[in-house]
Amino acid sequence: MSFIATPQSMHFAEALPLISGAAIRDYTLAYETYGQLNADKSNAVLVCHALNASHHVAGVYEGEPRSEGWWDNMIGPGKPVDTNRFFVIGVNNLGSCFGSTGPMHKHPDTGEVYGADFPVVTVEDWVNAQARLLDRLGIGQLAAVLGGSLGGMQALSWTLQYPERTRHAVVVASAPNLTAENIAFNEVARRAIVTDPDFHGGHFYRHGVIPQRGLRIARMIGHITYLSDDVMNEKFGRQLREGIHLKYSTQEVEFQIESYLRYQGDKFSEYFDANTYLLITRALDYFDPALRHGGSLAQALAVARARFLLVSFTTDWRFSPQRSREIVQALLENRRDVSYAEIDAPHGHDAFLLDDARYMGVMRSYFDSISKELA
Amino acid sequence: MSFIATPQSMHFAEALPLISGAAIRDYTLAYETYGQLNADKSNAVLVCHALNASHHVAGVYEGEPRSEGWWDNMIGPGKPVDTNRFFVIGVNNLGSCFGSTGPMHKHPDTGEVYGADFPVVTVEDWVNAQARLLDRLGIGQLAAVLGGSLGGMQALSWTLQYPERTRHAVVVASAPNLTAENIAFNEVARRAIVTDPDFHGGHFYRHGVIPQRGLRIARMIGHITYLSDDVMNEKFGRQLREGIHLKYSTQEVEFQIESYLRYQGDKFSEYFDANTYLLITRALDYFDPALRHGGSLAQALAVARARFLLVSFTTDWRFSPQRSREIVQALLENRRDVSYAEIDAPHGHDAFLLDDARYMGVMRSYFDSISKELA
Repeated sequence: MSFIATPQSMHFAEALPLISGAAIRDYTLAYETYGQLNADKSNAVLVCHALNASHHVAGVYEGEPRSEGWWDNMIGPGKPVDTNRFFVIGVNNLGSCFGSTGPMHKHPDTGEVYGADFPVVTVEDWVNAQARLLDRLGIGQLAAVLGGSLGGMQALSWTLQYPERTRHAVVVASAPNLTAENIAFNEVARRAIVTDPDFHGGHFYRHGVIPQRGLRIARMIGHITYLSDDVMNEKFGRQLREGIHLKYSTQEVEFQIESYLRYQGDKFSEYFDANTYLLITRALDYFDPALRHGGSLAQALAVARARFLLVSFTTDWRFSPQRSREIVQALLENRRDVSYAEIDAPHGHDAFLLDDARYMGVMRSYFDSISKELA
Repeated sequence: MSFIATPQSMHFAEALPLISGAAIRDYTLAYETYGQLNADKSNAVLVCHALNASHHVAGVYEGEPRSEGWWDNMIGPGKPVDTNRFFVIGVNNLGSCFGSTGPMHKHPDTGEVYGADFPVVTVEDWVNAQARLLDRLGIGQLAAVLGGSLGGMQALSWTLQYPERTRHAVVVASAPNLTAENIAFNEVARRAIVTDPDFHGGHFYRHGVIPQRGLRIARMIGHITYLSDDVMNEKFGRQLREGIHLKYSTQEVEFQIESYLRYQGDKFSEYFDANTYLLITRALDYFDPALRHGGSLAQALAVARARFLLVSFTTDWRFSPQRSREIVQALLENRRDVSYAEIDAPHGHDAFLLDDARYMGVMRSYFDSISKELA
């Protein structure tokens, strides 16, 4: 049984300048907090989310017993990130479709739904927006910033954009930038959405339709890349839907894996916003702190002051251990304090969301050590 | 400068019974032959093609100097498969869109274009159709059957369906069946095609349209899986299309890899038939000789009499070396004569089509040894 979480929101009238040169004003951030901020405000932990997640990180909503947050196994009373000791903040990012201002909301100037006109947001913009929220909450310095995958990119970026505000950064299943292959998968997913006739150039809301075909394809591609080949073979293998009796059809479901993927695609297309998908995958593509340092990650990370924990998973081929090791290496070149755990887990990229005794043990012991620094 | 190839075709009036229980009659196979059949007809080599290929295996067409066949680096006078010594036959498979009878042709009963009603064809069906062509050409036994990827599955299947007609089988970058991940990629590609509104349930020909959106997506997914992560990083990496100046757009091309994939998708969608794509990916999914042997590949291969060469490539994650080793292992359990080469090449699955000194050397020496057996 998990604790009760209560979603909150904060409005920001003043414009947030974006990396692209555009700005966004009159926006709202949805967030949740768990635990109590201590007297000297030194126990705050910010949790950053990845593609398909939100500010609802842990706990359940009142009267909805199955509404656990996406990292409920990690965060809560007595859990690795112990809310009896830490004040944990989950924020939904700008451009999302889960509560914060996004493409389905109205532009304050025109009163029209943003749609495709929602400005392109980057990891750096999200971090700036999160920093403003912390300002409002009266939190100067974070005990830790924590995230997996795209969330890990935000955690890393915190240490570069606000080095003095970040005591620890916990970067899980992440990378210093996307490889060409990852950009390629994102691009195929985006093309599937954008070329769906129901996309209407991103202004599908006006037409009362959603580009479900494209979203389904995008999600199916995503799902394949989140899992490892091993786990797919173990879970589905070549299992036929209806025993050994083959239908010999190109369109009917023949294998269990097809049925699973179609189901995942259908479900996703019913709740996820197409413009949000474009924005978030683009933020992933753009993240590359080394770009403005001639490609040198070590130079890019020279400004960081935080202590780091990096975690990767052996079968994660989307954000492979090698990518985490690049970050570790660049931090060591800067003589930063860094711990690194490479977890032997079969679940691919998804492993960062799953229970694994060694993974949870590493996280627990790192956060235990952070809590010992608190007054 | 390559030799001149001449496409030929052979009509078959009699019905070919298919694995599905259906049959196809009054069909045509397009094929090419290179070199001369020797007096005792012992030097024939059949080359089987993969997804995006045809009977045009080697040589160029008269007056079209850039029309080299898809395996022109491998096959020809003085090449590893030397047409001065071997009589090489390339056949286009049933259901293809490159000359043999396929979904864009007319059903002999109705006079209507097959479209989605073209029967589902399997690797076994293709092999049976190829065997009939060889009958007509007066070829009893093949010196060798040769193929890469899906073509390798056909070569393997020849040794099971016609063990006495197959002296050697050369199976390159192939597998005894597809993994769940491979089926998954095929399924996403098929869903992209089938859900394109221009697909019209597979009868798009009647509507004067083609499902280009779906074909583009299918090809982009395919392309990602044919290349290795390494080669993508080397060829494209995070190179921006227009220098360091970012556009901050979700739909415009920003990275070179996006431009490359879009170009490949566009090109493919202009010449490849959507129904053919469904049929060929399905033939890949279905291939699984162990299925009717309780999953035992060794039992399935017990009937084979051929000598084998298996070749795989280290960075091929679609048909990984491990899958070739499974075939080698099953053959060894049957005390078959098998050679195996695992080529350290960076190019992923595509490596089987590319020049690589070690790969070409292995092929040359294997075919040299076959030629020494000839009278």
